[in-house]
Amino acid sequence: MASITIIGTGAMANAIGGVFAAGGHDVAHVARDQVGTAPLDGDIVVLAVPYGALDGLATTYGEQLAGKTVVDITNPLNFETFDSLVVPAGSSAAAQLQAKLPASHVVKAFNTTFAATLGAKQVGGLPTTVLVAGDDADAKAALIAAVTSSGLGAVDAGSLERAHELEAIGFLQLTLAVGEQIGWTGGLAVAR
Amino acid sequence: MASITIIGTGAMANAIGGVFAAGGHDVAHVARDQVGTAPLDGDIVVLAVPYGALDGLATTYGEQLAGKTVVDITNPLNFETFDSLVVPAGSSAAAQLQAKLPASHVVKAFNTTFAATLGAKQVGGLPTTVLVAGDDADAKAALIAAVTSSGLGAVDAGSLERAHELEAIGFLQLTLAVGEQIGWTGGLAVAR
Repeated sequence: MASITIIGTGAMANAIGGVFAAGGHDVAHVARDQVGTAPLDGDIVVLAVPYGALDGLATTYGEQLAGKTVVDITNPLNFETFDSLVVPAGSSAAAQLQAKLPASHVVKAFNTTFAATLGAKQVGGLPTTVLVAGDDADAKAALIAAVTSSGLGAVDAGSLERAHELEAIGFLQLTLAVGEQIGWTGGLAVAR
Repeated sequence: MASITIIGTGAMANAIGGVFAAGGHDVAHVARDQVGTAPLDGDIVVLAVPYGALDGLATTYGEQLAGKTVVDITNPLNFETFDSLVVPAGSSAAAQLQAKLPASHVVKAFNTTFAATLGAKQVGGLPTTVLVAGDDADAKAALIAAVTSSGLGAVDAGSLERAHELEAIGFLQLTLAVGEQIGWTGGLAVAR
């Protein structure tokens, strides 16, 4: 059983928490107004917040996050134009977060799965599959084990450098949904 | 019926040609040793060649390609390391090609569908769906019509700027297949 703290109480936070709770894992949520006062007990801490909130969390919880697996789920889009990312070309939100939390094991995950597909555990008839990128093999393996034991698929997508590609996938998927080319219950499914 | 010329005779060239031929379209292939002598009769010209061959084709056929829809299917990977792309960060092979062929309508397509999934017309039980990005609405619509009338799905993925994201998807998909996380008959399927 994994011990997981989820910062955030939005749709993605609830969907991810629901997945892990249904899988029998120990899940605690930290709401926005508890940030700074609530302790982070989990070995895995999911930052289920918008990209713009990552900096503040890293500042507030930097020391507490040392040694932990920190999961970045963000899609750093310009949500006014839906035409670009707000991170430098070639970089990623996850790489920025890792630079701010050098003592943590940052893992990119859940940014390519819409909330509805986490709840349904399927997308287009295929198992909802979480793409996971990170540099620490143990951290990545622990997250993948927690995800798969909760009934979802999980695929090791490589080093944290691949977060750039995962964020590109998340970006494109969001533009397709906003442009009504796909539905919010759909997306890019992983066929093994 | 669309008139389509395919430059190349590799697995992807054959798979794409097979799709369009089965759809009743007029398909002609130009083999590597015919480049420069064979005319390009199609209104749609698919450059089914490796990234490194695009420059030479643009030089050789630049004038003949004016006014035509030119389909770039490449994934500009560093195939020695499988750890990076060989185009500048934030750019794409398709954008480079468009810059070299300003009088053509460059469209990115087929770089996110493995050859086997084009032949099978399904991936993981979902219809194989071609993601199409380009700046010319008519060129994009003509290609999408040719693809869908041939029994595949096709999705308008936006402007040619989105070729960056399509190439990121192609890159990640290739690394997953080479790393045996997915099979060559699988990949990222589009659930609508």
